[in-house]
Amino acid sequence: MHGMIEYIEGKRPVVEALRSHVPMQCVLMADNVQHDGLIKDIERKAKALDIPVRTVRRADLDAKSERGSHQGVMAQAKPFAYCSVQDILDIATRQAEERDGRALIVILDHITDAGNLGAIARSAEVVGAAGIVIPNKRSAHVTAATYKSSAGAISNIAVAQVANLIQVIDRLKQDGFWVAGASEHASQGIWQSNLKGSIALVMGNEGEGLARLTCESCDFLMALPQVGETASLNVAQSATACMYEWLRQNL
Amino acid sequence: MHGMIEYIEGKRPVVEALRSHVPMQCVLMADNVQHDGLIKDIERKAKALDIPVRTVRRADLDAKSERGSHQGVMAQAKPFAYCSVQDILDIATRQAEERDGRALIVILDHITDAGNLGAIARSAEVVGAAGIVIPNKRSAHVTAATYKSSAGAISNIAVAQVANLIQVIDRLKQDGFWVAGASEHASQGIWQSNLKGSIALVMGNEGEGLARLTCESCDFLMALPQVGETASLNVAQSATACMYEWLRQNL
Repeated sequence: MHGMIEYIEGKRPVVEALRSHVPMQCVLMADNVQHDGLIKDIERKAKALDIPVRTVRRADLDAKSERGSHQGVMAQAKPFAYCSVQDILDIATRQAEERDGRALIVILDHITDAGNLGAIARSAEVVGAAGIVIPNKRSAHVTAATYKSSAGAISNIAVAQVANLIQVIDRLKQDGFWVAGASEHASQGIWQSNLKGSIALVMGNEGEGLARLTCESCDFLMALPQVGETASLNVAQSATACMYEWLRQNL
Repeated sequence: MHGMIEYIEGKRPVVEALRSHVPMQCVLMADNVQHDGLIKDIERKAKALDIPVRTVRRADLDAKSERGSHQGVMAQAKPFAYCSVQDILDIATRQAEERDGRALIVILDHITDAGNLGAIARSAEVVGAAGIVIPNKRSAHVTAATYKSSAGAISNIAVAQVANLIQVIDRLKQDGFWVAGASEHASQGIWQSNLKGSIALVMGNEGEGLARLTCESCDFLMALPQVGETASLNVAQSATACMYEWLRQNL
């Protein structure tokens, strides 16, 4: 994922990406593209955002296209600037000093839906989390879709992509973080859990929740009570409720 | 919207709707449709769910199609069974008796995104809300998309569609509900607000929040603290955090 170039292809997807302020290297347009309303809109928006529009041969787009649905236009996204776990720890330390010791780092244990990643990033930014840690494999990463689902908040929060979540959890523990895993199966409710101070909140993936090894690495597990008949909350909703409980206990 | 028949058109959307368990009257298939993998999948799923598949002339599909993208297959959704405000009040009364006086009704002041409606329905069902009240105009209503975004929870929660939200709010007040409006502009934070007992939670729309008249009808307004730089939380995330605070105060 790291360093991979993402292309957005097709008229509407490119318009949508420009609207969501996905940072772009350039827009590529086929030399024989029809200047219809959407193409004109793309040219106008790209100009306003200072993104160069390059004319290329249609065959070049065909070669770059993954889905064959470019309709004569593709945008080349800038690679997302991931930061390191150390960067996030530095932000957390600074925040803890300014905010009576409270800091929050969110760890996502193989979330697979880009929409959920964006929604969690949006809420994390709103509650003032220091950053988000995601695995670099079998996990949603930051794409054009994340800009949209985060309403742009992904640009305002630090995201680290790591090879090994367990190592990160161990490191955070050494740095004085309490590591709280959200799990439906926890016997302790979230409102009985102490979330004061520097907390790492670990959320499991959409299907299976937290992995066994991840569970075992957490200092404690906590459950959001569920009263209804539905199997479970959406992970982004659940993350938001947990993050707000952290904020409540720390304000 | 009431009584309007919704058609889902195109192979993938129909497969998706069957997968989301959208209740269906029937599936309509063009007599000359190619029996490819997706069409076979539709036939198999429809059979498993006891939904009749009818063969019709392609011209009939063309006539019913709104977008002209039916690809030889359309599904006719059953109209969603909205209930009345009285039904929701009855459920709330029963729940309050069983649950130490706690009951929650969620009122959506012109939410426009079907995805948000579904996400709110899912969380509302999980916290055990008695029902959701939505306006019958200029508002998202229950469609096939709502089944998907609610992960099916929309089938397990009562939804009332009404002409006038203010009248509903007044009625709920008379029935002993405290009406709490969620607003970024409220001076009182949610954690300083008393959400014990029977509460009607009013959420504003994605763009403008609560309408002025709606604000004035609420017993009180409350804000979720926002620490970050992002303009605001997504309304479904915000609703979930509010509903969980209601549950926390009442458990």
